[in-house]
Amino acid sequence: MIRALLCDVEGTLLVDGAALPGAPEALRAAVQAGIAVRFVTNTTTRPRAQVARELRGAGFDVPDEYVFSALRAGREYLARRGVARAMLLVTEAARADFDGVAHDEDAPAAVVVGDLLDAWTAAMLQRAFERLLEGAELVALVKSRYYRRGGRLLLDAGPYVAALEHASGREATLVGKPSPEFFRLALSTTGVPPAEAVVVGDDLEADVGGAQGAGMRGLLVRTGKFRAQDLARPTVAPDAVLASVADLPGWLSGSSR
Amino acid sequence: MIRALLCDVEGTLLVDGAALPGAPEALRAAVQAGIAVRFVTNTTTRPRAQVARELRGAGFDVPDEYVFSALRAGREYLARRGVARAMLLVTEAARADFDGVAHDEDAPAAVVVGDLLDAWTAAMLQRAFERLLEGAELVALVKSRYYRRGGRLLLDAGPYVAALEHASGREATLVGKPSPEFFRLALSTTGVPPAEAVVVGDDLEADVGGAQGAGMRGLLVRTGKFRAQDLARPTVAPDAVLASVADLPGWLSGSSR
Repeated sequence: MIRALLCDVEGTLLVDGAALPGAPEALRAAVQAGIAVRFVTNTTTRPRAQVARELRGAGFDVPDEYVFSALRAGREYLARRGVARAMLLVTEAARADFDGVAHDEDAPAAVVVGDLLDAWTAAMLQRAFERLLEGAELVALVKSRYYRRGGRLLLDAGPYVAALEHASGREATLVGKPSPEFFRLALSTTGVPPAEAVVVGDDLEADVGGAQGAGMRGLLVRTGKFRAQDLARPTVAPDAVLASVADLPGWLSGSSR
Repeated sequence: MIRALLCDVEGTLLVDGAALPGAPEALRAAVQAGIAVRFVTNTTTRPRAQVARELRGAGFDVPDEYVFSALRAGREYLARRGVARAMLLVTEAARADFDGVAHDEDAPAAVVVGDLLDAWTAAMLQRAFERLLEGAELVALVKSRYYRRGGRLLLDAGPYVAALEHASGREATLVGKPSPEFFRLALSTTGVPPAEAVVVGDDLEADVGGAQGAGMRGLLVRTGKFRAQDLARPTVAPDAVLASVADLPGWLSGSSR
């Protein structure tokens, strides 16, 4: 019996800002069936208010507080550790989600890495490396390799995290997907236990692997960044593979039988 | 009995372009003792003619052809594979060592990664990533994390190689140190077998680990990028640790007794 649904955004509900066919209807059907729906995204370029606004603009019924992003997970992590000053390697817009944390490139307690789009420079990586040598903690909002936009696969923050891990000889703490903590944070607002929750997304490792690591079921959709060769990897086995999120109501009714 | 010496350059013979005290005399003593001396460097910013010129300017007696660099090893590797077009992610000056290989960002057979100093951009990494997705081979001239210059630890090419490995999901072919092939290439010009050769350098993994991987002895010097905590790593055990290369004659006379 599934009572909670954590739904990835980019490539699962939206592609290039527009709803995938049947996606709004599929989520509406889930809500009407009494399933609690939350939105889980590793997007680190836009604050969650903007993600919620985009979802509403595309026909989804989403209050801001139902969006759980890697940015928000990063903010929660820093707060728990009492970190008030961090080198925030995220876009200007994304800094809005880090209320209570001052951006500091000279003496930060943490270096926080997100997707900087085209703004990455060698000087920025060098500075982050020096702060890590001085003892700052390396926090990866995401480790995803790339995402699909406008028909291109664009580098995400993962490769830059890998660069800083290699340079500093230390492993980053991951706060976004596929961190189990991230999924638990989103699920905690529904009151549903992991065994009755499902995550649906287009990223085999971040969505499906992450869900299963947190004790939830993980469904893969063949949209967004999905590539057929993903299924050839033996590391993660999805609980189901759907053509798109539009097929979700069918799977849910089958799974709750 | 040691009959060949492969000597690292940056941090071992030179620091910020000047000879370390006693270094020219130490190499002269080795040559007078009948030991064949070659120079092995992972510097990828300057062609070998320039490295040889710098060494001569600092008081070392070095013909160009005794300098073996990661650039030259990259050139040899591409030639063996019949690669005539490569995306050469190296400085303008360094491209001089890639005679016979055209720089091509659109349809290269290989993406070759060296140290680009401050010239790295996000757009460059994105383009390299796309070429790798299309099937180009990833060739790392070096994987070193950093080097010391002017009192600072500067990022080397390694972190950028790690970024492209993570993005593409593939491992780079390493042609510079610590690749055993690199040391064998340099040693092959002396006619001395590996068991009678020693490598001296300031990088535990690249110099000492690489030497031992090629069946040679590896000496670590406490100059250049050396940091005391290097010795705490259990992975590589130097055959000896010297205060500096100036102590080499003493070690050589001891080892040949």
